[in-house]
Amino acid sequence: MSSSTTKTGQPLDRGVLDGLLRRRLFYTPSFEIYGGEKGLYDYGPPGCSLQANIVDQWRKHFVLEEDMLEVDCTMLTPEAVLKTSGHVDKFADWMCKDPKTGEIFRADHLVEQVLEARLTADKEARGQKIVVEEAKDAKKKKVKAVAAQKLDDATVKEYEETLAKIDNYGGPELGELIVKHDIKGPTSGAVLEPPKAFNLMFQTQIGPAADKPNGYLRPETAQGQFLNFAKLLEFNQQAMPFASASIGKSFRNEIAPRSGLLRVREFLMAEIEHFVDPESGKKHPRFEEVKETKLTLLNRETQLSGSTKVEEKSIGEAVSTKLVDNETLGYFLVRIQEFLMKIGVDKSKLRFRQHMANEMAHYATDCWDAELLTSYGWIECVGCADRSAFDLSVHKKATGAPLVVRQARAEPLVIEEWEAELNRKKLGPKFRKDAKAVENAVDQLSQELREKLSLDLEKDGKISIDTPGVGSGKTELEKDLIVIEKRKRTEHTREFTPNVIEPSFGIGRILYSLMEHVFWTREGDEARGVLSFPPLVAPTKVLLVPLSNHPDLRKFLTGLSQKLRKAGVANKTDDSSASIGKRYSRNDELGTPLGITIDFQTVKDSTVTLRDRDSTKQVRASQDDIVAAVKALCEGDKTWADIASELPAFEGQETD
Amino acid sequence: MSSSTTKTGQPLDRGVLDGLLRRRLFYTPSFEIYGGEKGLYDYGPPGCSLQANIVDQWRKHFVLEEDMLEVDCTMLTPEAVLKTSGHVDKFADWMCKDPKTGEIFRADHLVEQVLEARLTADKEARGQKIVVEEAKDAKKKKVKAVAAQKLDDATVKEYEETLAKIDNYGGPELGELIVKHDIKGPTSGAVLEPPKAFNLMFQTQIGPAADKPNGYLRPETAQGQFLNFAKLLEFNQQAMPFASASIGKSFRNEIAPRSGLLRVREFLMAEIEHFVDPESGKKHPRFEEVKETKLTLLNRETQLSGSTKVEEKSIGEAVSTKLVDNETLGYFLVRIQEFLMKIGVDKSKLRFRQHMANEMAHYATDCWDAELLTSYGWIECVGCADRSAFDLSVHKKATGAPLVVRQARAEPLVIEEWEAELNRKKLGPKFRKDAKAVENAVDQLSQELREKLSLDLEKDGKISIDTPGVGSGKTELEKDLIVIEKRKRTEHTREFTPNVIEPSFGIGRILYSLMEHVFWTREGDEARGVLSFPPLVAPTKVLLVPLSNHPDLRKFLTGLSQKLRKAGVANKTDDSSASIGKRYSRNDELGTPLGITIDFQTVKDSTVTLRDRDSTKQVRASQDDIVAAVKALCEGDKTWADIASELPAFEGQETD
Repeated sequence: MSSSTTKTGQPLDRGVLDGLLRRRLFYTPSFEIYGGEKGLYDYGPPGCSLQANIVDQWRKHFVLEEDMLEVDCTMLTPEAVLKTSGHVDKFADWMCKDPKTGEIFRADHLVEQVLEARLTADKEARGQKIVVEEAKDAKKKKVKAVAAQKLDDATVKEYEETLAKIDNYGGPELGELIVKHDIKGPTSGAVLEPPKAFNLMFQTQIGPAADKPNGYLRPETAQGQFLNFAKLLEFNQQAMPFASASIGKSFRNEIAPRSGLLRVREFLMAEIEHFVDPESGKKHPRFEEVKETKLTLLNRETQLSGSTKVEEKSIGEAVSTKLVDNETLGYFLVRIQEFLMKIGVDKSKLRFRQHMANEMAHYATDCWDAELLTSYGWIECVGCADRSAFDLSVHKKATGAPLVVRQARAEPLVIEEWEAELNRKKLGPKFRKDAKAVENAVDQLSQELREKLSLDLEKDGKISIDTPGVGSGKTELEKDLIVIEKRKRTEHTREFTPNVIEPSFGIGRILYSLMEHVFWTREGDEARGVLSFPPLVAPTKVLLVPLSNHPDLRKFLTGLSQKLRKAGVANKTDDSSASIGKRYSRNDELGTPLGITIDFQTVKDSTVTLRDRDSTKQVRASQDDIVAAVKALCEGDKTWADIASELPAFEGQETD
Repeated sequence: MSSSTTKTGQPLDRGVLDGLLRRRLFYTPSFEIYGGEKGLYDYGPPGCSLQANIVDQWRKHFVLEEDMLEVDCTMLTPEAVLKTSGHVDKFADWMCKDPKTGEIFRADHLVEQVLEARLTADKEARGQKIVVEEAKDAKKKKVKAVAAQKLDDATVKEYEETLAKIDNYGGPELGELIVKHDIKGPTSGAVLEPPKAFNLMFQTQIGPAADKPNGYLRPETAQGQFLNFAKLLEFNQQAMPFASASIGKSFRNEIAPRSGLLRVREFLMAEIEHFVDPESGKKHPRFEEVKETKLTLLNRETQLSGSTKVEEKSIGEAVSTKLVDNETLGYFLVRIQEFLMKIGVDKSKLRFRQHMANEMAHYATDCWDAELLTSYGWIECVGCADRSAFDLSVHKKATGAPLVVRQARAEPLVIEEWEAELNRKKLGPKFRKDAKAVENAVDQLSQELREKLSLDLEKDGKISIDTPGVGSGKTELEKDLIVIEKRKRTEHTREFTPNVIEPSFGIGRILYSLMEHVFWTREGDEARGVLSFPPLVAPTKVLLVPLSNHPDLRKFLTGLSQKLRKAGVANKTDDSSASIGKRYSRNDELGTPLGITIDFQTVKDSTVTLRDRDSTKQVRASQDDIVAAVKALCEGDKTWADIASELPAFEGQETD
């Protein structure tokens, strides 16, 4: 458990931050007046605007900058699609039921919480210091408070090892751990039912004719992109490589949602599917531009050795040493880092963690997660996986759709192969309903077997082949029915299934982690929360504050607001009767980077003051100069230091 | 059935437009390689970009311009919420099952289609001209082709009257019509089962503990806004009036989806809930600004008289004559029209239709739909209803949450009322478990009754009141248990439930109608489709076309693309080997308003040509001048006529 810090290095009190976020309506539990529904949250105005700004930057950074093909596919998905993708069979967590209370627990979380609580109780008994966050967490998780109680050293070691491997256990192993460590229903003390798999997709019925659920809400946006592959390739005028992208909600019916915005049942994703020719070595044309960029990497071997020591490496080096599998994957890791920096993530709280072999899907070649450090620990916010040709292949197999690329060969390819050709005119009349099965059996003969059979045919005038399900399982074919010979053919086109590199962003997780990264407390008469969002993503860019509601000031207010809007700068007015200080402090909590005060000096000479949220310093200048400064700050062309050196400082005090 | 036209007045061939839209991947049926799923469509790159641009303009036009509080609420919704809102009981259509084939039909659509087909057959028999679209439609709907057959005049009249009122029939009436007109299963000829109500919400199970569906996908975004009312009011620092807004997907499990993008099962909505004080007369502070604006109105009375004759009226006149109920409703009708004009809707194909009394929800005060004319007829694209205090009231009643506004009264209000006060100390011991029921019965006594009872109490020393469910249903209360007297109290705050004006936009319907409105065919050697989107919403603003792939040209291409991006202009390059003419023609179909050609003249003097999609005219100038012109055109600051007069024309021919 990490003790995390604010932007300025103060210890982070999550309760204080969370209080601010709810008070200012960044987010709020959904359906609260109906008692709430776990794992569902609504975004209020500042959260909604922050989310829209992050999505907008994402679209600019990836879709526009890289000419990706954005699609918007439906969330409702028929069962057949998710059966093929493997989600119907494998997208599940293990749950345990308390037979007495009917409560349901996620098995791995329960084991984790109970063992952690016992270790905490052990530390207490040993008189060791307990990190505050740790104690609180145990309490929050509603695991029965365990009185200080010493464990023997071997047990401590066993618990610690179990916890380190908690993500690796399946249902049966979790069941054994529950029995072995005598883990009971936390409120009832009852013996729990053995873990059962619970599919995490929301089921529903599409159309009135279905008499049982026939569809699901999508668990990811990726499948819609794969299903449209052939159309997208055509749209792209057959050019490879290319990427599709999609931004939209996905769903996951969590057994026991926790960790606030980090583990929810409905969430916004942004996913890219970059399709490459596997024979290209997965080179990327723009890799040169990024190869010097350094990333903080936590590789597979280090983790296997039980350590979490990171290393700083240029992506060029990481790819050339094969630590990162290929250029395209490496290129995207850099682009992910650039995106996260742009929206205000703290670089010292970002690392790229490589998946261990047993964490990856069996088809994946390599996978790295961008993880952000928060008060909940390191959180996976972006996954970047090489999914090989898996998805396109399975959908092609299930539907027969040509999810392939056909390219003219620069040099025609001459292929010499044993071909087996049936005489169709005679085949039908002779085998009738079995004709198709015989044909399939012949098609599937290997090259070696064909060579051998051609000799048999030459020698005996007939051959015998395996035909499961037809007659005795063996079928004889005479010379007049089949010809087997070595033939040459020339292939002018090459056909292949592209591989896919998939950067997949959990927007809600990024949004929450960002809020932790930019939060700090301004010391003073009373501690005041500040959210230092960069102007690019701040919900509101400028707050307009008239000193009073005098009509002379109002005139300037309306004009200035329109000028800012014309310049494309989102602004709000606070003309409440609260003091200027109170109004600015409210907007520090809302993360508004700039404030403009209109006072009686404005009426005299048309000047206004501009305040910087982070330093609380102010400058005073004409409205046009201030609008220009605001625009430059919001578009990232200038910093506050630039503005402070260009425009005269203003020392008027903030009145509380 | 209307015969609709293109932007330039040509007859609109829907098949041709639809072919273009699918070929260019504006949209495509979802899951097509799996056989498709009715009523679900994916947007490809141009459709997705068009949708994002429309949403962006919506946000600027409404949320930013009017300082609305945008929220993003979950789609998953617990049953209790939708029970209160009335959706669980009433959000249904009537369906009919064919017992032989198992096919399911929407009852009103089936009656409509069969009667229309018979009328068409009658016209044919009478030798009347049949509008082509009409014949095609009947065919598409899979209603059995009816051979030309004359009906008697009375039947024709009856059918026509039934069709005019088709939206008004409930299930039992539809059942009677099916029997009376001998309507059978279209494919089987079987007698159909009587109409049954089918709830249009998608059901699902939230969490692992539920043993039956306990939630739904939302049918509208409105409920999330109502549930958060108290928090939004607090966020708005208690100021009234204010509006919330939400953009997101909603769901409707259509019985038999049809009409392409117009009637789908998953769709994007943008909804505004504008909360007003009902005692304010629903005035709007900015009504003055819009009152001269003229709207095309189709009022309730005209429709009742069987006509669809519209009238042009200023909204000022419409509100002052009470045709439109109030200023706020009127203000939004104008803002809706402005928005639709801005994104390129044809004003001659827009009308506002007032709901008839039986169309409106019982609680609604007035309701107007913005309808757009398409080849499917007039389509409801935006609804604008005064929902009174209905939603906030029912949720308040169901949950006890204070969904009200409390305002300090300028003048304290003195109220003199009959109060009935129970002696609680004696009440409990005497009535035990019935005490609460007795208390409720007393609370609900009217002022009149209280006055009468006070006299009884004076006279008899006891009173008798109705207490349903307690004892005999009557309860006697003696003098020591109750006091009834007239008392004065002073109210310093006023508490009220706001009324709601709700403009609700179907983004998908607007998007489709817009595509019909901007489509036309350029006559020439071969007819070529053009989508004349305004630059503001066009999927791509500028196409860059290098004359060849010569490296000298490529250098300019990259630089120019970056300059445009820096200026905030989305651009694409087409460096395929197709002729310039072919490349421009592809982009006419994609609706790209501007094209820039880079040729060998560019290498000599750095000039490029700029082409206007609609006129195909070109100008030639320096790159900086062209970038400035593009920016001005895209931001709506200049028209092509301005640019053509400022920059030298270029007469180089387009080579096919």
